[in-house]
Amino acid sequence: MINHETIVALATPSGAGAIAIIRLSGNDAISIAESVFQSVSGKKLSKQKTHTIHLGHIVEEGKVYDQVLVSNFKNPNSYTGEDVVEISCHGSTYIQQQIIQLLLRKGAKMAQAGEFTLRAFLNGKLDLSQAEAVADLISSDNEASHQIAMQQMRGGFSNEIAKLREELLNFASLIELELDFAEEDVEFADRSQFKELLNRIEFVLKRLIDSFAVGNVIKNGIPVAIVGEPNVGKSTLLNALLNEERAIVSDIAGTTRDTIEDELVIDGIGFRFIDTAGIRETKDVVESIGIKKTFEKIEQAQVVIYLFDGSKFKSSSSQFVIELEQIKNKYPQKPLVILINKKDVLSEEEISNINLKLENLHLKQILISAKNKEGIDELKNTLLSFVNTGALRNNETIVTNTRHYDSLLKALEEIQKVKFGMETNLSSDLMAIDIKQALYYFGEITGEVTNDELLGNIFANFCIGK
Amino acid sequence: MINHETIVALATPSGAGAIAIIRLSGNDAISIAESVFQSVSGKKLSKQKTHTIHLGHIVEEGKVYDQVLVSNFKNPNSYTGEDVVEISCHGSTYIQQQIIQLLLRKGAKMAQAGEFTLRAFLNGKLDLSQAEAVADLISSDNEASHQIAMQQMRGGFSNEIAKLREELLNFASLIELELDFAEEDVEFADRSQFKELLNRIEFVLKRLIDSFAVGNVIKNGIPVAIVGEPNVGKSTLLNALLNEERAIVSDIAGTTRDTIEDELVIDGIGFRFIDTAGIRETKDVVESIGIKKTFEKIEQAQVVIYLFDGSKFKSSSSQFVIELEQIKNKYPQKPLVILINKKDVLSEEEISNINLKLENLHLKQILISAKNKEGIDELKNTLLSFVNTGALRNNETIVTNTRHYDSLLKALEEIQKVKFGMETNLSSDLMAIDIKQALYYFGEITGEVTNDELLGNIFANFCIGK
Repeated sequence: MINHETIVALATPSGAGAIAIIRLSGNDAISIAESVFQSVSGKKLSKQKTHTIHLGHIVEEGKVYDQVLVSNFKNPNSYTGEDVVEISCHGSTYIQQQIIQLLLRKGAKMAQAGEFTLRAFLNGKLDLSQAEAVADLISSDNEASHQIAMQQMRGGFSNEIAKLREELLNFASLIELELDFAEEDVEFADRSQFKELLNRIEFVLKRLIDSFAVGNVIKNGIPVAIVGEPNVGKSTLLNALLNEERAIVSDIAGTTRDTIEDELVIDGIGFRFIDTAGIRETKDVVESIGIKKTFEKIEQAQVVIYLFDGSKFKSSSSQFVIELEQIKNKYPQKPLVILINKKDVLSEEEISNINLKLENLHLKQILISAKNKEGIDELKNTLLSFVNTGALRNNETIVTNTRHYDSLLKALEEIQKVKFGMETNLSSDLMAIDIKQALYYFGEITGEVTNDELLGNIFANFCIGK
Repeated sequence: MINHETIVALATPSGAGAIAIIRLSGNDAISIAESVFQSVSGKKLSKQKTHTIHLGHIVEEGKVYDQVLVSNFKNPNSYTGEDVVEISCHGSTYIQQQIIQLLLRKGAKMAQAGEFTLRAFLNGKLDLSQAEAVADLISSDNEASHQIAMQQMRGGFSNEIAKLREELLNFASLIELELDFAEEDVEFADRSQFKELLNRIEFVLKRLIDSFAVGNVIKNGIPVAIVGEPNVGKSTLLNALLNEERAIVSDIAGTTRDTIEDELVIDGIGFRFIDTAGIRETKDVVESIGIKKTFEKIEQAQVVIYLFDGSKFKSSSSQFVIELEQIKNKYPQKPLVILINKKDVLSEEEISNINLKLENLHLKQILISAKNKEGIDELKNTLLSFVNTGALRNNETIVTNTRHYDSLLKALEEIQKVKFGMETNLSSDLMAIDIKQALYYFGEITGEVTNDELLGNIFANFCIGK
């Protein structure tokens, strides 16, 4: 299955920049690079030590393509575990293309998406969940998702799974041994110890499965629906929230990124704000479609913010209360926050009047001035309070990957079958089957058990060059 | 003037990719990198040899930012001539930002546009024209401009100028010496040799100045106006011309670039096709504005293509001939090519009829079928024949930079003054002034003579990170 053909790809983002990196990996990486590289020192690349950098030119038949730095990494001490050469060239798209074409002419093959990391997995440099973390790491755009991917890439998750798997494997072999001596009715596997292990595994699996709820929102951002009619200050509020983050980004010229207007990172956690039109009751057909959509968006959200203009409370207080009750009754489990905007124009009396009317709802309410950025910190802290970041802070393993989540669920099911088998004095040979199945699902996560289709699916989501 | 503060910037294009390179340069580059880098080997970066690569993690107070490869280049053996560290990290924008911010906290300063190359110049690693070639190299998008930039970066142009400057400098010092012995009326500088040198310098300067006409179009692309009404096949023609190049680009996934539809590279030379509406005579005010614009575009073009639908020749032949004569009379020096489209539907008789009507114009005419891609090669060869690529093929130095062109013109003027002084027996002391002035202009090109404003202007056009 392992293919040692030499592959080549651009490893840096496409487009023009100061420099670009072209990466070769495979049995002929060094000889292919050597065939087009003339070092200034005159020494051949194959004679150089691993992890060294050499100045020279990319040349073909006397034509100089570029002045470059070439780094070499000899197997197994490279990302892929194969011989790897990195060519650091000037960053014009033209030069990148010319050099890649030249290397293709010299026998390299264009790398598929994720092929470098696939090779790293196949050569045992990374397990499968670590390989998957590489893609997560590259796509992470906030601290929380970055931290989880980093932990996973460094083997945190794999270690936890591998440890359980090993203990289970020990017991499994003892039980297999019992089967060999079936007629003698011996028990090599201490049943009470085994029960204790199964309980421990069940506990860990449940914790990991539970962590997926947090992991998933952290990876994809926490959806927050803002219910509020036009002109109550929604965009001013978003700008107030965005303000700090934007400043940090624009500080670093050359690294500004395209931000989706309504995606904010608060204290390292991503939030996605979903604008809704509001839910004013009406007989109008068009408006009632709008209301339906608002409820659909609330449905998708994990947190709901109800925003209204405090200065209009007097005239519309009954409407506000009705709408809030509607949401509360329809989604009793969903965190709902009342934001009273335009604090800056409200009198003490108006404020206490609002408080009086809303207190029966027993909802978190925050008085803000989106315009003057008052109350924004309280809002941020409230939003953060809805995210269970405890696990994150304690550096616990958090599952973010649906594939892992599925395998964990299946493993848990098998473990519970084994437990049930113990309680009902199931025969060892049948129990052994369930244990094997649980081991299989553990192996799926780290890649001890795999197949081409699964690998194809996983690595197709990578970028080319990684 | 040299600033040894340590600067930092992203060196690879912004955006997400497999990997990104963050570059540090300056006195503290290694110590700053060391303060955030924990190598897997445990060895300190400052203890490592130059031009070596080290695996490890970027860490601050126990928080791991990324697993990275760090390369170190000890002064003077680096791009800038200073200590340089390159951090190869995972290519997420978030990670790039976090690491750059961390390095800024540790005392690095954000690099200005072109500051790495400016430092390379100030530290004597490159002369000024070589530094300018770096920017040209990065922005080159075809073979010809790439080749010229490459030659210039490797010192071809500088060497030519430096040689002339040195010879002139020798004579200048002899003439200065004569001034010291003015009362004795000696001639240290052999006047006939000096005259020969001046002629040689004049010849070279004129050749370089002439080369700018080619260099400029190669750098910016050769503008070609296509005169033709809608529906005569302009876009089919452009597609037929584009066809091959596009195929090459799309072969390499991950390196596709945004192409301006109408910019083509033919045999390594860039052509910019300018669409015009045609020049049908009319009394209509709106149309006559269109005609004015067509003529403006022809004015800007270096080559004019007159395209018409051969199958409509019979009905419009007099109009075609009148328009062609108009263009020819207005721009007698401008190459004008007649393209007769839809060859595929024309009979032999129609073709000979067209030839007969157009032969008096004495213009190059090409019969094509844009649809079937017939005649396209002939058109390409014809376009190429208008570009004087002789100098390019002979690897002669070609001037592409307006600043160099200006300095060369001024130097030529001074050399001609010196020659005139020789002929009119101008006193040595006055002649010495003109020679010094010529030397000054030579020095401007390579950067022996410079000032902050000039450097500011040159390097402001660079990208950050280069």
